[in-house]
Amino acid sequence: MEFCHFRKSSVKDGMDLLSGKWKIHIIGTLLYGGKMRFMDLQREVKGIGAKMLSKELQDLEANQLLIRTVVSSKPITVEYELSEFGRSLEPVIDAIAEWGMKYRSVMMDREIPHP
Amino acid sequence: MEFCHFRKSSVKDGMDLLSGKWKIHIIGTLLYGGKMRFMDLQREVKGIGAKMLSKELQDLEANQLLIRTVVSSKPITVEYELSEFGRSLEPVIDAIAEWGMKYRSVMMDREIPHP
Repeated sequence: MEFCHFRKSSVKDGMDLLSGKWKIHIIGTLLYGGKMRFMDLQREVKGIGAKMLSKELQDLEANQLLIRTVVSSKPITVEYELSEFGRSLEPVIDAIAEWGMKYRSVMMDREIPHP
Repeated sequence: MEFCHFRKSSVKDGMDLLSGKWKIHIIGTLLYGGKMRFMDLQREVKGIGAKMLSKELQDLEANQLLIRTVVSSKPITVEYELSEFGRSLEPVIDAIAEWGMKYRSVMMDREIPHP
Protein backbone atom coordinates (compact mmCIF):
# COMPACT_ATOMS: atom_id res chain seq x y z
CA MET A 1 0.00 0.00 0.00
CA GLU A 2 3.05 2.27 0.49
CA PHE A 3 3.35 3.58 -3.08
CA CYS A 4 -0.42 3.76 -3.43
CA HIS A 5 -0.43 6.08 -0.41
CA PHE A 6 2.31 8.19 -2.02
CA ARG A 7 0.36 8.28 -5.31
CA LYS A 8 -2.82 9.36 -3.52
CA SER A 9 -0.98 12.18 -1.78
CA SER A 10 0.33 13.27 -5.19
CA VAL A 11 -3.26 13.38 -6.45
CA LYS A 12 -4.06 15.46 -3.35
CA ASP A 13 -1.11 17.81 -4.04
CA GLY A 14 -2.21 18.20 -7.62
CA MET A 15 -5.87 18.77 -6.76
CA ASP A 16 -5.08 21.22 -3.95
CA LEU A 17 -3.44 23.43 -6.58
CA LEU A 18 -6.21 22.97 -9.09
CA SER A 19 -9.02 23.24 -6.55
CA GLY A 20 -12.04 25.36 -7.07
CA LYS A 21 -14.40 25.71 -9.97
CA TRP A 22 -12.28 28.01 -12.19
CA LYS A 23 -8.56 27.19 -12.14
CA ILE A 24 -8.69 24.39 -14.68
CA HIS A 25 -10.77 26.61 -16.99
CA ILE A 26 -8.28 29.47 -16.69
CA ILE A 27 -5.31 27.15 -17.29
CA GLY A 28 -7.05 25.50 -20.25
CA THR A 29 -7.89 28.91 -21.74
CA LEU A 30 -4.29 30.16 -21.41
CA LEU A 31 -2.97 26.85 -22.72
CA TYR A 32 -4.94 27.25 -25.95
CA GLY A 33 -5.04 31.07 -26.08
CA GLY A 34 -1.42 31.90 -25.10
CA LYS A 35 -0.64 35.31 -23.53
CA MET A 36 -3.86 37.15 -22.62
CA ARG A 37 -5.04 40.32 -20.88
CA PHE A 38 -7.44 40.38 -17.94
CA MET A 39 -10.47 41.44 -20.03
CA ASP A 40 -9.73 38.78 -22.68
CA LEU A 41 -9.53 36.13 -19.99
CA GLN A 42 -12.74 37.30 -18.32
CA ARG A 43 -14.54 37.13 -21.68
CA GLU A 44 -13.19 33.64 -22.51
CA VAL A 45 -13.79 32.05 -19.09
CA LYS A 46 -17.56 32.26 -19.31
CA GLY A 47 -19.33 33.31 -16.13
CA ILE A 48 -16.35 34.30 -14.00
CA GLY A 49 -16.53 37.63 -12.17
CA ALA A 50 -13.63 40.10 -12.09
CA LYS A 51 -13.03 39.65 -8.35
CA MET A 52 -12.91 35.84 -8.61
CA LEU A 53 -10.68 35.96 -11.70
CA SER A 54 -8.29 38.31 -9.93
CA LYS A 55 -8.11 35.99 -6.88
CA GLU A 56 -7.58 32.85 -8.97
CA LEU A 57 -4.83 34.55 -11.01
CA GLN A 58 -3.08 35.53 -7.76
CA ASP A 59 -3.28 31.91 -6.50
CA LEU A 60 -1.90 30.58 -9.78
CA GLU A 61 0.94 33.12 -9.74
CA ALA A 62 1.75 32.32 -6.09
CA ASN A 63 1.96 28.62 -7.03
CA GLN A 64 4.35 29.47 -9.89
CA LEU A 65 1.93 28.29 -12.59
CA LEU A 66 1.42 31.75 -14.10
CA ILE A 67 3.56 34.70 -15.19
CA ARG A 68 2.15 38.22 -14.84
CA THR A 69 3.78 40.88 -17.06
CA VAL A 70 3.12 44.63 -16.74
CA VAL A 71 3.34 46.16 -20.22
CA SER A 72 4.43 49.83 -20.13
CA SER A 73 1.91 50.90 -22.73
CA LYS A 74 -0.37 53.92 -22.12
CA PRO A 75 -2.58 53.07 -20.36
CA ILE A 76 -0.52 50.35 -18.63
CA THR A 77 -1.74 46.85 -19.44
CA VAL A 78 -1.10 43.54 -17.66
CA GLU A 79 -0.66 40.28 -19.52
CA TYR A 80 -0.93 36.74 -18.18
CA GLU A 81 0.63 33.56 -19.53
CA LEU A 82 1.36 30.11 -18.17
CA SER A 83 4.83 29.47 -16.79
CA GLU A 84 6.74 26.45 -18.07
CA PHE A 85 5.40 24.62 -15.04
CA GLY A 86 1.87 25.75 -15.79
CA ARG A 87 2.22 24.43 -19.34
CA SER A 88 3.29 21.05 -17.91
CA LEU A 89 -0.39 20.68 -16.96
CA GLU A 90 -1.24 20.07 -20.61
CA PRO A 91 -1.55 16.27 -20.19
CA VAL A 92 -4.00 16.84 -17.30
CA ILE A 93 -6.09 19.30 -19.33
CA ASP A 94 -6.01 16.98 -22.35
CA ALA A 95 -7.04 13.98 -20.23
CA ILE A 96 -9.97 15.96 -18.79
CA ALA A 97 -10.97 17.21 -22.25
CA GLU A 98 -10.83 13.68 -23.73
CA TRP A 99 -12.87 12.35 -20.86
CA GLY A 100 -15.35 15.25 -21.05
CA MET A 101 -15.91 14.49 -24.76
CA LYS A 102 -16.46 10.80 -24.03
CA TYR A 103 -18.89 11.66 -21.24
CA ARG A 104 -20.77 14.10 -23.47
CA SER A 105 -21.14 11.49 -26.25
CA VAL A 106 -22.21 8.77 -23.82
CA MET A 107 -24.77 11.09 -22.25
CA MET A 108 -26.07 12.44 -25.54
CA ASP A 109 -25.54 9.21 -27.58
CA ARG A 110 -24.59 10.98 -30.79
CA GLU A 111 -21.46 10.87 -32.92
CA ILE A 112 -19.11 13.87 -32.27
CA PRO A 113 -16.32 15.29 -34.48
CA HIS A 114 -12.92 13.73 -33.75
CA PRO A 115 -9.77 15.93 -33.86
CA MET B 1 -11.16 28.59 -33.05
CA GLU B 2 -14.21 26.28 -33.58
CA PHE B 3 -12.65 23.02 -32.32
CA CYS B 4 -10.80 24.89 -29.60
CA HIS B 5 -14.19 26.13 -28.36
CA PHE B 6 -15.51 22.53 -28.46
CA ARG B 7 -12.44 21.29 -26.58
CA LYS B 8 -12.88 23.97 -23.92
CA SER B 9 -16.51 23.04 -23.43
CA SER B 10 -15.40 19.41 -23.01
CA VAL B 11 -12.99 20.54 -20.29
CA LYS B 12 -15.94 22.39 -18.74
CA ASP B 13 -18.14 19.25 -18.96
CA GLY B 14 -15.42 17.18 -17.37
CA MET B 15 -14.69 19.66 -14.60
CA ASP B 16 -18.37 20.27 -13.82
CA LEU B 17 -18.61 16.56 -12.96
CA LEU B 18 -15.38 16.53 -11.00
CA SER B 19 -15.99 19.88 -9.31
CA GLY B 20 -15.48 20.42 -5.64
CA LYS B 21 -12.66 19.50 -3.32
CA TRP B 22 -13.44 15.80 -2.80
CA LYS B 23 -14.67 14.04 -5.94
CA ILE B 24 -11.27 13.38 -7.46
CA HIS B 25 -10.02 12.07 -4.09
CA ILE B 26 -13.01 9.70 -3.80
CA ILE B 27 -12.60 8.48 -7.39
CA GLY B 28 -8.84 8.04 -6.93
CA THR B 29 -9.41 6.09 -3.69
CA LEU B 30 -11.99 3.77 -5.31
CA LEU B 31 -9.76 3.37 -8.38
CA TYR B 32 -6.90 2.05 -6.24
CA GLY B 33 -9.00 0.50 -3.43
CA GLY B 34 -11.76 -1.22 -5.45
CA LYS B 35 -15.14 -1.89 -3.79
CA MET B 36 -15.37 -0.11 -0.42
CA ARG B 37 -17.84 0.57 2.38
CA PHE B 38 -18.80 4.04 3.59
CA MET B 39 -16.65 3.87 6.73
CA ASP B 40 -13.63 2.59 4.76
CA LEU B 41 -14.03 5.45 2.31
CA GLN B 42 -14.39 8.02 5.08
CA ARG B 43 -11.20 6.72 6.70
CA GLU B 44 -9.24 6.74 3.42
CA VAL B 45 -10.37 10.15 2.16
CA LYS B 46 -8.63 12.09 4.93
CA GLY B 47 -10.62 14.96 6.37
CA ILE B 48 -13.98 14.38 4.72
CA GLY B 49 -17.08 14.48 6.94
CA ALA B 50 -19.86 11.89 6.76
CA LYS B 51 -22.43 14.40 5.44
CA MET B 52 -20.10 15.64 2.67
CA LEU B 53 -19.08 12.09 1.71
CA SER B 54 -22.72 11.08 1.48
CA LYS B 55 -23.54 14.06 -0.77
CA GLU B 56 -20.54 13.48 -3.06
CA LEU B 57 -21.38 9.77 -3.39
CA GLN B 58 -24.96 10.71 -4.39
CA ASP B 59 -23.61 13.15 -7.03
CA LEU B 60 -21.24 10.52 -8.43
CA GLU B 61 -24.02 7.93 -8.55
CA ALA B 62 -26.41 10.39 -10.24
CA ASN B 63 -23.72 11.06 -12.87
CA GLN B 64 -23.33 7.30 -13.47
CA LEU B 65 -19.71 7.22 -12.24
CA LEU B 66 -20.46 5.08 -9.19
CA ILE B 67 -22.39 1.88 -8.38
CA ARG B 68 -24.01 1.54 -4.95
CA THR B 69 -24.77 -2.02 -3.82
CA VAL B 70 -26.85 -2.89 -0.72
CA VAL B 71 -25.46 -6.11 0.75
CA SER B 72 -28.15 -8.12 2.62
CA SER B 73 -25.82 -8.95 5.50
CA LYS B 74 -26.94 -8.37 9.12
CA PRO B 75 -26.65 -5.49 9.73
CA ILE B 76 -27.22 -4.41 6.14
CA THR B 77 -24.08 -2.89 4.58
CA VAL B 78 -23.70 -0.68 1.51
CA GLU B 79 -20.74 -0.97 -0.85
CA TYR B 80 -19.49 1.53 -3.39
CA GLU B 81 -17.45 0.93 -6.53
CA LEU B 82 -16.72 2.86 -9.70
CA SER B 83 -18.85 2.11 -12.73
CA GLU B 84 -17.10 1.27 -15.98
CA PHE B 85 -17.50 4.92 -16.86
CA GLY B 86 -16.05 5.99 -13.53
CA ARG B 87 -13.03 3.76 -14.16
CA SER B 88 -12.53 5.50 -17.52
CA LEU B 89 -11.32 8.45 -15.42
CA GLU B 90 -8.08 6.57 -14.73
CA PRO B 91 -6.05 8.56 -17.30
CA VAL B 92 -7.24 11.81 -15.66
CA ILE B 93 -6.33 10.59 -12.16
CA ASP B 94 -2.98 9.31 -13.42
CA ALA B 95 -2.22 12.60 -15.19
CA ILE B 96 -3.03 14.54 -12.00
CA ALA B 97 -0.92 12.13 -9.88
CA GLU B 98 2.04 12.40 -12.28
CA TRP B 99 1.79 16.15 -12.29
CA GLY B 100 1.36 16.28 -8.48
CA MET B 101 4.58 14.27 -8.08
CA LYS B 102 6.46 16.57 -10.45
CA TYR B 103 5.17 19.63 -8.61
CA ARG B 104 6.15 18.14 -5.25
CA SER B 105 9.70 17.40 -6.43
CA VAL B 106 10.10 20.81 -8.03
CA MET B 107 8.88 22.49 -4.86
CA MET B 108 10.93 20.36 -2.51
CA ASP B 109 13.94 19.84 -4.86
CA ARG B 110 14.64 16.30 -3.74
CA GLU B 111 14.72 12.95 -5.58
CA ILE B 112 11.47 10.95 -5.16
CA PRO B 113 10.91 7.20 -5.69
CA HIS B 114 9.89 6.37 -9.27
CA PRO B 115 7.25 3.64 -9.86
